[in-house]
Amino acid sequence: MGTTDRVREILSWYGSDSPGTLTNLARMLSAGALGGTGKMVILPVDQGFEHGPARSFATNPAGYDPRYHFQLAIEAGCSAYAAPLGFLEAGARDFAGQIPLILKLNNHDVLYEEKDPEQAVTGSVRDALRLGCVAIGYTIYPGSSARLEMYSTLRALAEEAKANGLVVVVWSYPRGSGLSKEGETGIDVTAYAAHIAAQLGAHIVKVKLPSAHLEQAAAKKVYEKESVPVGTLAERVRHVVQSTFNSRRVVIFSGGPAVGDEQVFEEVRAIRDGGGFGSIIGRNSFQRKKPDALKFLGTIMGIYAGTQK
Amino acid sequence: MGTTDRVREILSWYGSDSPGTLTNLARMLSAGALGGTGKMVILPVDQGFEHGPARSFATNPAGYDPRYHFQLAIEAGCSAYAAPLGFLEAGARDFAGQIPLILKLNNHDVLYEEKDPEQAVTGSVRDALRLGCVAIGYTIYPGSSARLEMYSTLRALAEEAKANGLVVVVWSYPRGSGLSKEGETGIDVTAYAAHIAAQLGAHIVKVKLPSAHLEQAAAKKVYEKESVPVGTLAERVRHVVQSTFNSRRVVIFSGGPAVGDEQVFEEVRAIRDGGGFGSIIGRNSFQRKKPDALKFLGTIMGIYAGTQK
Amino acid sequence: MGTTDRVREILSWYGSDSPGTLTNLARMLSAGALGGTGKMVILPVDQGFEHGPARSFATNPAGYDPRYHFQLAIEAGCSAYAAPLGFLEAGARDFAGQIPLILKLNNHDVLYEEKDPEQAVTGSVRDALRLGCVAIGYTIYPGSSARLEMYSTLRALAEEAKANGLVVVVWSYPRGSGLSKEGETGIDVTAYAAHIAAQLGAHIVKVKLPSAHLEQAAAKKVYEKESVPVGTLAERVRHVVQSTFNSRRVVIFSGGPAVGDEQVFEEVRAIRDGGGFGSIIGRNSFQRKKPDALKFLGTIMGIYAGTQK
Amino acid sequence: MGTTDRVREILSWYGSDSPGTLTNLARMLSAGALGGTGKMVILPVDQGFEHGPARSFATNPAGYDPRYHFQLAIEAGCSAYAAPLGFLEAGARDFAGQIPLILKLNNHDVLYEEKDPEQAVTGSVRDALRLGCVAIGYTIYPGSSARLEMYSTLRALAEEAKANGLVVVVWSYPRGSGLSKEGETGIDVTAYAAHIAAQLGAHIVKVKLPSAHLEQAAAKKVYEKESVPVGTLAERVRHVVQSTFNSRRVVIFSGGPAVGDEQVFEEVRAIRDGGGFGSIIGRNSFQRKKPDALKFLGTIMGIYAGTQK
Amino acid sequence: MGTTDRVREILSWYGSDSPGTLTNLARMLSAGALGGTGKMVILPVDQGFEHGPARSFATNPAGYDPRYHFQLAIEAGCSAYAAPLGFLEAGARDFAGQIPLILKLNNHDVLYEEKDPEQAVTGSVRDALRLGCVAIGYTIYPGSSARLEMYSTLRALAEEAKANGLVVVVWSYPRGSGLSKEGETGIDVTAYAAHIAAQLGAHIVKVKLPSAHLEQAAAKKVYEKESVPVGTLAERVRHVVQSTFNSRRVVIFSGGPAVGDEQVFEEVRAIRDGGGFGSIIGRNSFQRKKPDALKFLGTIMGIYAGTQK
Repeated sequence: MGTTDRVREILSWYGSDSPGTLTNLARMLSAGALGGTGKMVILPVDQGFEHGPARSFATNPAGYDPRYHFQLAIEAGCSAYAAPLGFLEAGARDFAGQIPLILKLNNHDVLYEEKDPEQAVTGSVRDALRLGCVAIGYTIYPGSSARLEMYSTLRALAEEAKANGLVVVVWSYPRGSGLSKEGETGIDVTAYAAHIAAQLGAHIVKVKLPSAHLEQAAAKKVYEKESVPVGTLAERVRHVVQSTFNSRRVVIFSGGPAVGDEQVFEEVRAIRDGGGFGSIIGRNSFQRKKPDALKFLGTIMGIYAGTQK
Repeated sequence: MGTTDRVREILSWYGSDSPGTLTNLARMLSAGALGGTGKMVILPVDQGFEHGPARSFATNPAGYDPRYHFQLAIEAGCSAYAAPLGFLEAGARDFAGQIPLILKLNNHDVLYEEKDPEQAVTGSVRDALRLGCVAIGYTIYPGSSARLEMYSTLRALAEEAKANGLVVVVWSYPRGSGLSKEGETGIDVTAYAAHIAAQLGAHIVKVKLPSAHLEQAAAKKVYEKESVPVGTLAERVRHVVQSTFNSRRVVIFSGGPAVGDEQVFEEVRAIRDGGGFGSIIGRNSFQRKKPDALKFLGTIMGIYAGTQK
Repeated sequence: MGTTDRVREILSWYGSDSPGTLTNLARMLSAGALGGTGKMVILPVDQGFEHGPARSFATNPAGYDPRYHFQLAIEAGCSAYAAPLGFLEAGARDFAGQIPLILKLNNHDVLYEEKDPEQAVTGSVRDALRLGCVAIGYTIYPGSSARLEMYSTLRALAEEAKANGLVVVVWSYPRGSGLSKEGETGIDVTAYAAHIAAQLGAHIVKVKLPSAHLEQAAAKKVYEKESVPVGTLAERVRHVVQSTFNSRRVVIFSGGPAVGDEQVFEEVRAIRDGGGFGSIIGRNSFQRKKPDALKFLGTIMGIYAGTQK
Repeated sequence: MGTTDRVREILSWYGSDSPGTLTNLARMLSAGALGGTGKMVILPVDQGFEHGPARSFATNPAGYDPRYHFQLAIEAGCSAYAAPLGFLEAGARDFAGQIPLILKLNNHDVLYEEKDPEQAVTGSVRDALRLGCVAIGYTIYPGSSARLEMYSTLRALAEEAKANGLVVVVWSYPRGSGLSKEGETGIDVTAYAAHIAAQLGAHIVKVKLPSAHLEQAAAKKVYEKESVPVGTLAERVRHVVQSTFNSRRVVIFSGGPAVGDEQVFEEVRAIRDGGGFGSIIGRNSFQRKKPDALKFLGTIMGIYAGTQK
Repeated sequence: MGTTDRVREILSWYGSDSPGTLTNLARMLSAGALGGTGKMVILPVDQGFEHGPARSFATNPAGYDPRYHFQLAIEAGCSAYAAPLGFLEAGARDFAGQIPLILKLNNHDVLYEEKDPEQAVTGSVRDALRLGCVAIGYTIYPGSSARLEMYSTLRALAEEAKANGLVVVVWSYPRGSGLSKEGETGIDVTAYAAHIAAQLGAHIVKVKLPSAHLEQAAAKKVYEKESVPVGTLAERVRHVVQSTFNSRRVVIFSGGPAVGDEQVFEEVRAIRDGGGFGSIIGRNSFQRKKPDALKFLGTIMGIYAGTQK
């Protein structure tokens, strides 16, 4: 398998982690089409749980089948495939050893909508080991009144994961009554959310692409006083990456709902130019026919790899 | 005992489960009149706990006796008998080895009515092993504000059950302030509820027969845009089965309160035609005299077996 | 010690329990004046905790002394003596081996009054073993919003008790905002409460004597449609016993506050005629002088034994 | 599945076992060609471990393949298949639910030969549950200086097995420096060995067919004084069965090395006539070609079933 | 990473293992120059512990440095690198993710020489996870009076390893007073030793190349009677592989001390021709200069891959 200089450089940032965790991190950084570049594209499919099956899969009904997503991630050359317990259980034997797996340990549905959302714990570290995963995934909702309990639960799970040589991937999604709708993706809030995830011990942090909005008055004052450059998307990505231990933690970005391929590619270029480590792309990949998805993901990986502009 | 090709095909969908769990799943799929066909009819008697004894058994007072339901399930050729702790404890020795048992691990009563219901944990995995059960049963209420805690509790019980070679059967019943009354059985909500149960690791999912109602605006848009066929009951069954890992999990259906035998048979034909895996029939079977119940269940099994039209 | 045919018949209903639990059940059924008849009269003294010492013992100050109640129960020929931790600890050595003991594992006081009451866990299964008890006792409040948690706690304690060969006695007392005051003793609610206790795995169920009131609309309809006979107290006792696994669980009854001896005797005759298994009599026995109490309890036991009409 | 009167009679002997253990015992007694008769023929294949692969399988090389023995046991209609961990792991998924499995929890090889043999623990109760087994198997060597430790280990494993609803099958094989070679199968020693296994809590006891030899002087005196009839093989079987709780535990017999089919059939008739419960036949079945083995086992089952004389 | 058809075929033999264990097995089978072919060449360096440092490394002093062996295994394209705790701890961080690691969990030194050797447990399953290993390694000494305890310890470690998704590699080395020196590598003993390892649940079995010597009289008789072909080395390899679950477990071979490269290549051809799965080559690779070692290992891998004759 081998590892590149860049992968070894990234591993060097995680000095308090065991060789076991580094090994699994190296596996993710060495897998797929971007293997060795230090960039990652992850396929996440928790959409069925989060939004319901029809909203997730009716557009491309092949996606109702749990095996489809394994196949898509493998064929596209993704760095890893992330999903809740049921979807991983339904394919882990058939596709054993073919792609790094991330078990998403908590999940949320929209059959009841809370003002201050939280998630249910839906998997365990033991499940992750039993299924051959390289990492656990966990979502936190900074901004929700339930956030502190979410942080504490993450802490306990992360401690157990690390003791067993697994990687910890945190989805840090600001939501809840502490924030305005616009504030959820504000640059100050996004940078803050990424920093919290890193402070909680995440190895890989996933946030949404930030807008130029500044949500918190006290923060706004500083951004303006210090003239923190957040005008372009690339600048904002750079600021988030800087906020996440000055680029010594892997930060990846998700887009929102599908908009148009060219816009997604533009965003990917901004992530690349801002020093981001990659993308996590769910709906935009599994909600189109496989050939189209492979082409779409291929373009994105090409942008990260530098083989596409 | 032997297993048929169809049973082996179903077992092949559960690649992450131990041979122990597959053995117990094979026992259910091989028991009773439908043994080997891949179809199941389960007798559940948690009605006494859920609605009270008189509402459950006054119509056919033989049902006050816990032994009656074992006998009924055995004589009718059911695939399994499901009940709370007390009812199973009261017959498990006398009927040891005569029918697969499912211990219902949580229950709810109506002496207090919550807007957002939850259930009490009323049994354990150790109880299930001690009583010779093949499976645990657990109810979740998607749509209730208590749902996330129910999911998390199920997760822990399911992990323990699987580690001990038991099957996990989940009753997924949308209820609570997140949904309108009509929405509880809406097709979008029912498909979503089945999907959640499967993502939580259920081997067998039980839902109510869905209506054509579409509850959630965001879902409605997709059903209409993609022209998901949900006009007939058989189509709706097919959509629920598809939403449950594209038919790679066993999904069974319950009817509502008794209405008329012919209507029940019509529903069973729709389940069969839509690719459903069977029925779970409580009140409609134990609330009539035994000879009548045996005839009624016999007709239903005949429809599934193809010996009745 | 020997057991009668009737005791052996009763033991035969508990096929999922260990010989250890049967042994302790046999001890209760074989103790005291009613030993061997299948009937029981239990002395419970948790009144001090529940209502305060003066309300409980000022009338007969001998009752302030924990030894008094052991002596009373022994001299009266009771089947067992039930009390909270402190009262049992204060006499268990002195009266070791003289009467079966039930450790009441939860209790409630009235220094704060909740709309939806619950109880504190005040003893453990280990305490019960250490004190030489034959059983644990536990109260549930169906009708309270706290009921589900009470059921779950009972479940865990009952599992541990059974694993250690103890008997489980459940006080099932409907209370809370789910019910009207009259409803707490309504026949539908009482039968339902007894059924829930049995489903939770109780060996002995204790309920209050039911009135003819029907609390729940859905139940009322059934009682009327099926003409369930609940006009006389004996008929209501019979219905409760039937609702508790068709008389295959021991159900005993408490009266309310003291009213007049003859009325109590009338109630005991109704319990006997309705197939009830006995009485649990607290205030009415320890709130009078001992000679009077012994005479009073003697009459009651005589009615159950058939030596008094 | 159903159980016959005879099976229910046998289950009634095990009053201290849980319904879970009775269920698994019923499964064995209800499986295969002898299902329901109260007789059993078990296929054990631990020979490879005990004597080496060539000595076990060279005669019929199909037996090198672990799947062969599952198939043989299923096709022959055996009551159960018993083997060490590796052989069961190699087939338990493929043959899930097709035949009751017994995981042999200890084993011995002959690459070192002790005067006082013992065995290694080679499997666990958790393995048995994970593989879907109905029972654990365990060998003791009465007569060996290592026997007391073997009894103690068995006790601990049996306690765990019973707590999880499994059956305990004990191979009681007198060996070691406490006995002469002839004494290993002496009638006094065999009866004693069976009794010890039953006292250790075995549900099913397996011993070798006894000779008329009397090994122990003190025993010899009694056999002669009381004229215990042990002249014929059927009488000796009857005496062993009597010694095992007067026929209230299932005792099955193994022959020695292959000798000639008619001699084996004679032995089976003696087991049947002496009230034995069946045979465990290893080498004599898997060391011949499958069609021959099926015919051979068919004859034996016919003798037990009474369809062959 | 992907897996070939041959790798998937091999994984299909392990039906009772979790996807986690299959994933790690796939990693070994997919790594290095032979990745995907179903053949393996493993570098083991426990020589320092087993024979002392000078005897191990003085010939090629680069080998004193633990990092040397990681580099050698990686550059040579080995399938895995196996070593005791200390050697792995000394390099696991620097080489994280570059080669599958096997933590040898027990070891033996020669500062005391027993007639009946055993080994010390020198590592744990938790160590293996912490160091990012894909497998644990464990040595048994069939033929030693200590063997039964070694089997039992292996069993417990293997159960824990499998529960955590690791692979179990067993070095089965007959030694001890039960065998003659010649017998240690006799074909009957070697086949027996491989069979025992597989019965103990090993996924990968490592034995020495067998001689034509037949050690045990009882076995000799069978080999001669059945004319088991063991004349050539390839035939003997084939017999060992057959004895290990009819080729449904991975069996690899070690040579003895270095003799001459061409002789080693001859042996490798015999392993290949006999259906063996590969080699484990210690002294012969690290006791020569690296360029020489790389060439030597390259030739061996070429023979397995079919690119060298």
